[in-house]
Amino acid sequence: MRKLAVVAFGGNALLRSGQKGTYEEQMANIEKTCESLCNLFKRGYNVIIGHGNGPQVGNVMLQHEAGKKEFGLPAMPMDFCVAETQGSIAYMIEVALRNVFARNDIYRDVVTIVTQVAVNKLDPMFDNPTKPVGPYYTQAEAERLHAETGAIYREDPKGNGWRKVVASPKPKRINNIKIIKQLAKAGNVVVTVGGGGIPVVEENDCVSGVEAVIDKDLASALCAIQVEADEFYILTDVPKVYINYRKPDEKALDTITVDEAKAYLAAGQFAEGSMAPKVRAGIMFIENGGKSCVITEAGQLDNPYCGTRIVR
Amino acid sequence: MRKLAVVAFGGNALLRSGQKGTYEEQMANIEKTCESLCNLFKRGYNVIIGHGNGPQVGNVMLQHEAGKKEFGLPAMPMDFCVAETQGSIAYMIEVALRNVFARNDIYRDVVTIVTQVAVNKLDPMFDNPTKPVGPYYTQAEAERLHAETGAIYREDPKGNGWRKVVASPKPKRINNIKIIKQLAKAGNVVVTVGGGGIPVVEENDCVSGVEAVIDKDLASALCAIQVEADEFYILTDVPKVYINYRKPDEKALDTITVDEAKAYLAAGQFAEGSMAPKVRAGIMFIENGGKSCVITEAGQLDNPYCGTRIVR
Repeated sequence: MRKLAVVAFGGNALLRSGQKGTYEEQMANIEKTCESLCNLFKRGYNVIIGHGNGPQVGNVMLQHEAGKKEFGLPAMPMDFCVAETQGSIAYMIEVALRNVFARNDIYRDVVTIVTQVAVNKLDPMFDNPTKPVGPYYTQAEAERLHAETGAIYREDPKGNGWRKVVASPKPKRINNIKIIKQLAKAGNVVVTVGGGGIPVVEENDCVSGVEAVIDKDLASALCAIQVEADEFYILTDVPKVYINYRKPDEKALDTITVDEAKAYLAAGQFAEGSMAPKVRAGIMFIENGGKSCVITEAGQLDNPYCGTRIVR
Repeated sequence: MRKLAVVAFGGNALLRSGQKGTYEEQMANIEKTCESLCNLFKRGYNVIIGHGNGPQVGNVMLQHEAGKKEFGLPAMPMDFCVAETQGSIAYMIEVALRNVFARNDIYRDVVTIVTQVAVNKLDPMFDNPTKPVGPYYTQAEAERLHAETGAIYREDPKGNGWRKVVASPKPKRINNIKIIKQLAKAGNVVVTVGGGGIPVVEENDCVSGVEAVIDKDLASALCAIQVEADEFYILTDVPKVYINYRKPDEKALDTITVDEAKAYLAAGQFAEGSMAPKVRAGIMFIENGGKSCVITEAGQLDNPYCGTRIVR
């Protein structure tokens, strides 16, 4: 029986800070990340890939805004924008993997499932939207938009203006998870839960999109749990998780238990919006039956002992 | 053994002329089209859905153009834009179908495969690009863009300005077609070849995107051939195919042979860019082993004898 790994691609697998996000830049970054997965394939793993979409969905929302202003085109809601990025990012991952596989004599098909992820309409996060998305507005514009649409706008702490904030509810159910598992177990590389999944609510047999951003590491963790993955890799831009990060007594963590991870989290060792959600995703995987979650950077994957490992 | 049908959704399944293309409009149109498929499901068919993306990919290209002007964001190439629309349109089809199924006690999963379709780099259509895409420019702008990028621009016959034209090469190979077939035969509704597929060329084991638009009816026909579909439905905005269309002696066609269809095509009975490519797609299906291709409007599908049927 081949082992099954879920690998969550972080933002910098797709786009590095300072880049504009051209097609060529993104393709080159993705191909580099895909190259680093070769070792997993050569060791016989079946692989499911989740990925973020932060800068990409941000660009889509700006493009919709600009298209409305310039050409009168309707700007689409968050769920639609996430669906757009699932198509485009997965397409780039598929092309990159197909070319990496050809160069490395790896014979796998790559298949992308456009993936809805259901959240709970009563998730308390909906009462406290915190995730800023889309363009910056003046206070007056933000107030007008709030009056028109009911959306919440908050002032950017860096003083760039006002932005819409949406909720970041917990992922509860991944649509088509059985098909995802079956395709992966058959040896196909499956790309899914892009951008954390297209956020939907399901009630009374009715499904509908919702304005929200689902954390991609939590969505990938839920996927890893539900497909009963042997390992869960969270790729980021540092080789390991650190305590006292960027301080004189900074220390890289090799293997930590769930209890240790929770204690470090409680002590504020990991930054919110950065390492904290990754550690939480790792804990969630282990607490729901997973054996090992590795947080590392893509370039380290050649070494089976890479990264920081969270275990029971 | 359940019968397998491939259904190609035409433009007006998604967006009707005169509509702006809001989310609500598109969802309502798609849900109506999906309602009309119920009869196929109740008769036990397995179903694969292909769909167009003309107005949607046009909007995406305008949004990219506006985003470049307003925010300096990179405008992405055609293949990337098609991938975006595969994500967004399929998401809307999935939501619509899930809700239609719930109301009608139909128990099927709906799954979307982001789909690359390979074309031949030497396809003669690349020497004669004819498909206008994206924004209108002045002649001076078009000349500058041609000098910068090599892309071809032609004057719009209606005098709206100059537009980029891209090739419309023949679809040669649908990526992941075996997975598509297997998922459909297992009873899942599979959404694929959106917008005719993401156009790629495959050479020397290397795959790369290409600026082109693949006809969605031909791509759906190729899909129907390769999955060995029993029936191929092409949905459009008229109940049947007509000869002497909109003339005093207009005549609706019930059943025609491939030879009759070819003769009518040769006599110029079917408009290019409208009915002609649909009839060609039907001929292609029948000449490659298909039994029956039906061209009709979605609302007619309740009647098993609806539309114009092309047979051997």
